[in-house]
Amino acid sequence: MTRPYDIAAFRALIGPIKCEDNPVLVKQKSRDFYWYSPVLKRQLEPVTADLVVTPQDERQVATILAAAHELAIPVTARGGGTGNYGQAMPLDGGVLLNLIEMNRILAIAPGRVVCEPGALLADIDKAAAASGQELRMFPSTRATASIGGFIAGGSGGVGSITWGGLRDFGNVLRLRVMTMEASPRTLELTGADLHKAVHAYGTNGIITEVEMPLTAAYDWVDVIVGFDSFDAAAAYGLALGEQDGILKKLVTVIAAPAPARYFLRHRSIIPEGKSVVLAMVAPHALDAFEAFTRPVKGAELLFVSSRAPRETLAGLPPNYELAWNHTTLRALRVDPKITYLQVRYPEDGGLAMIRRIHERFGDEAVGHLEIIRFNGRIGFAGLPLVRFTTEERLQALIDEHEAMGAMVFNPHRYTLEEGGMKQTDATQLAFKRDTDPQGLLNPGKMIAWADPDFDYASGQNFLFPGLEARALAAQS
Amino acid sequence: MTRPYDIAAFRALIGPIKCEDNPVLVKQKSRDFYWYSPVLKRQLEPVTADLVVTPQDERQVATILAAAHELAIPVTARGGGTGNYGQAMPLDGGVLLNLIEMNRILAIAPGRVVCEPGALLADIDKAAAASGQELRMFPSTRATASIGGFIAGGSGGVGSITWGGLRDFGNVLRLRVMTMEASPRTLELTGADLHKAVHAYGTNGIITEVEMPLTAAYDWVDVIVGFDSFDAAAAYGLALGEQDGILKKLVTVIAAPAPARYFLRHRSIIPEGKSVVLAMVAPHALDAFEAFTRPVKGAELLFVSSRAPRETLAGLPPNYELAWNHTTLRALRVDPKITYLQVRYPEDGGLAMIRRIHERFGDEAVGHLEIIRFNGRIGFAGLPLVRFTTEERLQALIDEHEAMGAMVFNPHRYTLEEGGMKQTDATQLAFKRDTDPQGLLNPGKMIAWADPDFDYASGQNFLFPGLEARALAAQS
Ligand SMILES: Cc1cc2nc3c(=O)[nH]c(=O)nc-3n(C[C@H](O)[C@H](O)[C@H](O)COP(=O)(O)OP(=O)(O)OC[C@H]3O[C@@H](n4cnc5c(N)ncnc54)[C@H](O)[C@@H]3O)c2cc1C
Ligand SMILES: Cc1cc2nc3c(=O)[nH]c(=O)nc-3n(C[C@H](O)[C@H](O)[C@H](O)COP(=O)(O)OP(=O)(O)OC[C@H]3O[C@@H](n4cnc5c(N)ncnc54)[C@H](O)[C@@H]3O)c2cc1C
Repeated sequence: MTRPYDIAAFRALIGPIKCEDNPVLVKQKSRDFYWYSPVLKRQLEPVTADLVVTPQDERQVATILAAAHELAIPVTARGGGTGNYGQAMPLDGGVLLNLIEMNRILAIAPGRVVCEPGALLADIDKAAAASGQELRMFPSTRATASIGGFIAGGSGGVGSITWGGLRDFGNVLRLRVMTMEASPRTLELTGADLHKAVHAYGTNGIITEVEMPLTAAYDWVDVIVGFDSFDAAAAYGLALGEQDGILKKLVTVIAAPAPARYFLRHRSIIPEGKSVVLAMVAPHALDAFEAFTRPVKGAELLFVSSRAPRETLAGLPPNYELAWNHTTLRALRVDPKITYLQVRYPEDGGLAMIRRIHERFGDEAVGHLEIIRFNGRIGFAGLPLVRFTTEERLQALIDEHEAMGAMVFNPHRYTLEEGGMKQTDATQLAFKRDTDPQGLLNPGKMIAWADPDFDYASGQNFLFPGLEARALAAQS
Repeated sequence: MTRPYDIAAFRALIGPIKCEDNPVLVKQKSRDFYWYSPVLKRQLEPVTADLVVTPQDERQVATILAAAHELAIPVTARGGGTGNYGQAMPLDGGVLLNLIEMNRILAIAPGRVVCEPGALLADIDKAAAASGQELRMFPSTRATASIGGFIAGGSGGVGSITWGGLRDFGNVLRLRVMTMEASPRTLELTGADLHKAVHAYGTNGIITEVEMPLTAAYDWVDVIVGFDSFDAAAAYGLALGEQDGILKKLVTVIAAPAPARYFLRHRSIIPEGKSVVLAMVAPHALDAFEAFTRPVKGAELLFVSSRAPRETLAGLPPNYELAWNHTTLRALRVDPKITYLQVRYPEDGGLAMIRRIHERFGDEAVGHLEIIRFNGRIGFAGLPLVRFTTEERLQALIDEHEAMGAMVFNPHRYTLEEGGMKQTDATQLAFKRDTDPQGLLNPGKMIAWADPDFDYASGQNFLFPGLEARALAAQS
């Protein structure tokens, strides 16, 4: 990896397209929420692009990609920059392609929205509301994240209790993707081909247009149910998830002491010592929700937003901003020592495993579950809040989870593979060969490309050579 | 059970309310689809009411119930008369309360419709379409069945693949129910109380108003996928059901030779020897559906309604009129010897059990599965097409199913309990005591009321004494 790149020549080639080269501002835009992880925080600290380029339309994207291709300058896409694994961080410098101003909403029809990649999830929902529709799912960063970034860097979230994950068939309808070549092509991906660019961290083409499914919009009611034990809360959360007739968009389980300790604005609502279930329930399902909840032993209805006085609601974040990675965020704000894991528990025996793990780690890994639909079943995704001490202890925690039968998607890794299935994704790799033959898109994120012989069984972490060089340079 | 009732006095009491006493017409309206079952056909043949009364509003219902109560005349509610267990048949004669003209749609809001009980399911959907909405589920008799009859006599159907059954929390929002007393009261049932009148065959009050949940409406696409084996079709149907992101309203599996033999209008579409999966897929999910289906070994896409030429579509019933009990109906029309069972297979190991049962019975019980959501999981409900020989053999078939681990809801019984869980429903019984103290609503359908000491373990069928008396009278 040789730097510096010929940025001056690049600017000459792209002409009047909006650029920013102020190093402070460039560094700002070269960051995401990687600091959620103390490991990534250490590793990615020195990362910065050379230039931020902000196209206004697909033609400008084509100009930028052609120019970068000609000069062999890496290009890393960025939407809202809310990724939490350093997905949008340009490990090898170069051009930061800021897509947030390509945010037009192009068409809304029954069940569908077509828009540009930089559209914020909240803005898409606002636009869809006129037809009584909304997106099936959004990350808890709805207010600031882009649809392109969600598709390329996210996996699911609020709504996954009903619809499963982003990678499931049907949850993305169509992507228009631009290739990184001398003459960039635009490809329309549908069906099984979507997998080539969904959750590829922008290594497989630049998404210039998306078509997403819509569903019926409701004024979701936030409810909070308190329990004296995490175990009881988890069992209730699962059972609520399994109620097919109670339409909901979120069911989150968070163990004490986290809720009272970290949800500062909810202090008058959530007593100390309570584990909670947070849910978003459709207004017309509220009665059924309460009928279901009332007889549950130990369940205490702490909050129902549709009945809360205006004064109470005023300062309160919505439930979804207490859930998913917002739980981690709120914990981090109170206690900077907090980090997290991402865990999948098996469908059968999941509750018992969660109980065992919770008992084993106590306060070192406070339970946080998201109830989701997965392959037709309701199950648990875990985002436990971890009290960080050392990287070694963090790894030990992961190993112990796996030894107990849970599956860990390591959020302390910046590569696709190590944060995911720890194996080469042959489809994505083949697509990269076809669409980014020089490997210029977001270098270092796809191990299969950077180091085809990498041995996942070795126990070693992948270290992108470009990043290592950078780290050395920074130290000297 | 003493008859005749004082019908003249009754008519005097109800004044100008619409009545019909022509015996031929009364007998017609005293029938439903009970003849699906050769057993019920034999038992219920002589059943008829004395008078059909057709109220136009709730006030008239109150007048009718008060008059019948005063004169101790049984009252049996009827909607569309499409029940297939004789639910709406007045075993003890008396008044047939025909609610089909109370069919006003009173309000439609996001997620909700309020209407009178006689509204046809198809008409509710038509009215809801203006707001882009439709009912969550309907029986395959959508065109002729009433919402009140569906709630009181049905259990689920088209839409249950997404929403579960009618009795699940949230699938009925509110019922207004009138009691059978000297001064009939109206009760508003919500939450857990709904269970008192849902699927009570009109023995627990007369439903005078319903509030049902609505969901987003789509121009559902009918698809038919062919397979060379029932086993492969069932496995595919289950897997399709488990695709959380592919929005569908129906997934039905039917074994060869039934589809080619009984779906006469589909002869040019379904080749002989094919087992099929019928599905209704949202238009925006069609691409994902095809991407999911294409790699499935042996799956052959036989039909996609949105791509079929107009001429092909002209004479074709929609997929849902090939499914649920319409499968049985079409088989019966071709071969009057056909009857059916209602089976639930366990979630775990269901496929293997279905295979074993299918192998065991061959053509005597041709496989028909409805893929539904049940307690948060995708599973199989079975409606196998049975070649009827004798009642003894039919019972043996049921016993053998149960011995192999499947659960049979016997559709050859006219009582709530024998067609259901074979035990007293304490909540419904208590509600009946409170709201119909004389037991005048649809007598003979609730064993718990008619014969509290009935022993389900005895192996005997319940025989309603009133009906026996009638049968004897008819023979003499
Ligand atoms: C508080 C918090 C909560 C979160 N909750 C969730 C959650 O519930 N669910 C979830 O899935 N994630 C969650 N995340 C992660 C992240 O917010 C989501 O993935 C989010 O959708 C990213 O969108 P973004 O626009 O910020 O993307 P960015 O961070 O800007 O980019 C994400 C990735 O997508 C690539 N990319 C961006 N735009 C394009 C494009 N047009 N073409 C090609 N590649 C592109 C980038 O290169 C990068 O690899 C959370 C993060 C935080 C900090
Ligand atoms: C071809 C065919 C297909 C079918 N498919 C399905 C299916 O997919 N799913 C399903 O669940 N069922 C199905 N059924 C059964 C039946 O069609 C449904 O249950 C249907 O919804 C009944 O509606 P109805 O108006 O015809 O009711 P009816 O047959 O008139 O009445 C049904 C029961 O409800 C009671 N009742 C009616 N109105 C009221 C009222 N206002 N208050 C109190 N009680 C009342 C009656 O006394 C009776 O006990 C099918 C039947 C046939 C013949």
